[in-house]
Amino acid sequence: MATKGERTRDHILGEASRLVQRKGIGATSVGEILAAAGVHKGSLYFHFRDKEEIGREVIRQAADRFLGFVDRSLTGTTPRMALENFFAAALAYHRGTGFTGGCLFGNTALETGDADPGMAALVDEVFVAWMDRIARTIADGQRSGEFRDDVPARDLAQQVVATLEGGIMLSRLRKKAAPLERCIENLKIFLHAAVPARGLRTRRR
Amino acid sequence: MATKGERTRDHILGEASRLVQRKGIGATSVGEILAAAGVHKGSLYFHFRDKEEIGREVIRQAADRFLGFVDRSLTGTTPRMALENFFAAALAYHRGTGFTGGCLFGNTALETGDADPGMAALVDEVFVAWMDRIARTIADGQRSGEFRDDVPARDLAQQVVATLEGGIMLSRLRKKAAPLERCIENLKIFLHAAVPARGLRTRRR
Repeated sequence: MATKGERTRDHILGEASRLVQRKGIGATSVGEILAAAGVHKGSLYFHFRDKEEIGREVIRQAADRFLGFVDRSLTGTTPRMALENFFAAALAYHRGTGFTGGCLFGNTALETGDADPGMAALVDEVFVAWMDRIARTIADGQRSGEFRDDVPARDLAQQVVATLEGGIMLSRLRKKAAPLERCIENLKIFLHAAVPARGLRTRRR
Repeated sequence: MATKGERTRDHILGEASRLVQRKGIGATSVGEILAAAGVHKGSLYFHFRDKEEIGREVIRQAADRFLGFVDRSLTGTTPRMALENFFAAALAYHRGTGFTGGCLFGNTALETGDADPGMAALVDEVFVAWMDRIARTIADGQRSGEFRDDVPARDLAQQVVATLEGGIMLSRLRKKAAPLERCIENLKIFLHAAVPARGLRTRRR
């Protein structure tokens, strides 16, 4: 069972996490975290050295939750089904938020990419771990013949992650599913090595 | 010739633009704009109602410059060459910044997408105008047989923009060209309707 101190620490982190998800790390002040958590300054600084340490811990906890979500949803009877299940779960998650908040790691990458190399490295680890999982599934699907194999699995995995990040941004901007949905449909076409109509016609001549 | 008032207004906007590109709209204060421009409060408020008006004008001016850049670089002897020239120019631009700053419109979309519908609409106009230009080039290339035509040109154009935004974010995070470069190479493969190796093998059986 968690001690009182551990519960207080988790409670502060939970409130900090909500603020960071909504406003970003830069715009979240220690004062707001104190007010949201309803704790005194002394209690917060007993558990955390500074706001930077809270920010790093928020990202670490969110990374654990997100990679767990990837592991749970990236499963299926075939690699292609596994990837499509992950796509559907990601779309459902963002639909559930009304396309607010976006991707915490993408947001933090843009916010801290230039200014805070330590945080940038931490966020990059999350992207690398995410891409590794996608790349393993794609490599399995290349071996089974479900995915195109003329592009390395890790490059295809990077394309998936970059395109999802851009699609999440556009859907968040418009508060509509369509941009992210279309990005996913196009990724499926790109990955599945479907021979395009024109290619077929040219070949038949 | 610009009047003294117009020159002051342009000067304030130029300094505001540099601050917003580096720090984002939220983190840029009126005090910093005053300090950077070396003007008094009264002068700034003579030209602009509030920080929001400065922010909108910064985005409008940046949009004009960016769409001019797209028009100039999205040219070539064929639609495919035009798109590849645009890709090369975009990569060269971000390489020139050392992959700092990222995309002002993507940054502003993430920063204001949830909180400021007026700014979100303004940024969305930039994305729409950008996608329209890309879609026209792709449609031309579909008619000439250079691009795949089994996906509508506007969906392919959205894929280009979303993937570039994600690639710029990853390159900015790592301060390396590789993520954006790979995104562009994969977009070329996706657009060019290259028949993948596995598709050919399956077809020959």
